Amino acid sequence: MKRTLAALVAAILLPALASARPRAVGGEAAKAELMSVDTEFSQTAQEIGVGEAFARYADADAVMLPADANAVTGRAAVRRFAELPAGTSLVWKPNKADVAASGDLGYTLGTYEVRGKSADGRSYTRYGKYCSVWKRQKDGSWKWVVDIGTPSPPPQQH
Amino acid sequence: MKRTLAALVAAILLPALASARPRAVGGEAAKAELMSVDTEFSQTAQEIGVGEAFARYADADAVMLPADANAVTGRAAVRRFAELPAGTSLVWKPNKADVAASGDLGYTLGTYEVRGKSADGRSYTRYGKYCSVWKRQKDGSWKWVVDIGTPSPPPQQH
Repeated sequence: MKRTLAALVAAILLPALASARPRAVGGEAAKAELMSVDTEFSQTAQEIGVGEAFARYADADAVMLPADANAVTGRAAVRRFAELPAGTSLVWKPNKADVAASGDLGYTLGTYEVRGKSADGRSYTRYGKYCSVWKRQKDGSWKWVVDIGTPSPPPQQH
Repeated sequence: MKRTLAALVAAILLPALASARPRAVGGEAAKAELMSVDTEFSQTAQEIGVGEAFARYADADAVMLPADANAVTGRAAVRRFAELPAGTSLVWKPNKADVAASGDLGYTLGTYEVRGKSADGRSYTRYGKYCSVWKRQKDGSWKWVVDIGTPSPPPQQH
């Protein structure tokens, strides 16, 4: 009887531990982690280029939903599409993250700025906001699976 | 000893069952459920108006990220913002859903069409795609927490 109960304990305990693992990475710690990942993503884009960074941080099923174009699916297409002309920069900053209790799906919201020069040589800054959906990978890292943004009015001057 | 082990079984079993409950509502069944909810959401918008439907399906922290405007936060602001002029219709259809293993967070992707009449009386149709992020509520229902879309080129004619 003792042996049977011990086996029962093991039978219950092992799956419980397995299902507890992703849950442990949900909650506030996971939100902070996702904020950090999205911030690093923007920094990486400054270092290696937006197209390359978008590909590096993309889930295999990643989908961009750009304005005035069809959906862009998969890392290779994303790399081509997201690459910016020389002299144009894109920086962004998350302002919110939320993550499922299981720690395998989350999203970030944030704002972005595009700086460049128009055809007549004038510098411009365009503003926008975005939502990125993220999936945790088998190695524990986060990759974005949906990326979509919309233009915003210039911020109010104070 | 038997009693101690039984208590140990209970101590392990009860949290395991509790953590198994949300997991049971993830997976393919939850994806199908979210596709249905988003489809019903569009049908509801045809019946009671887009603004009212957006408010009814909104999480308390819902955020719309519309083009050329600032983020719109909360049900009351969403209701006002999403209401369309008389004679304008918005219909949408999800083509993908994914849900966290814990069943508490998910998203849908889809396409939309806006039909209306321009100032000169001509009918137009505008096309777009969207991402909605959804949170499961305490009562088990899904409400959207992020809504964002971008215009698409007209579909290719065949």
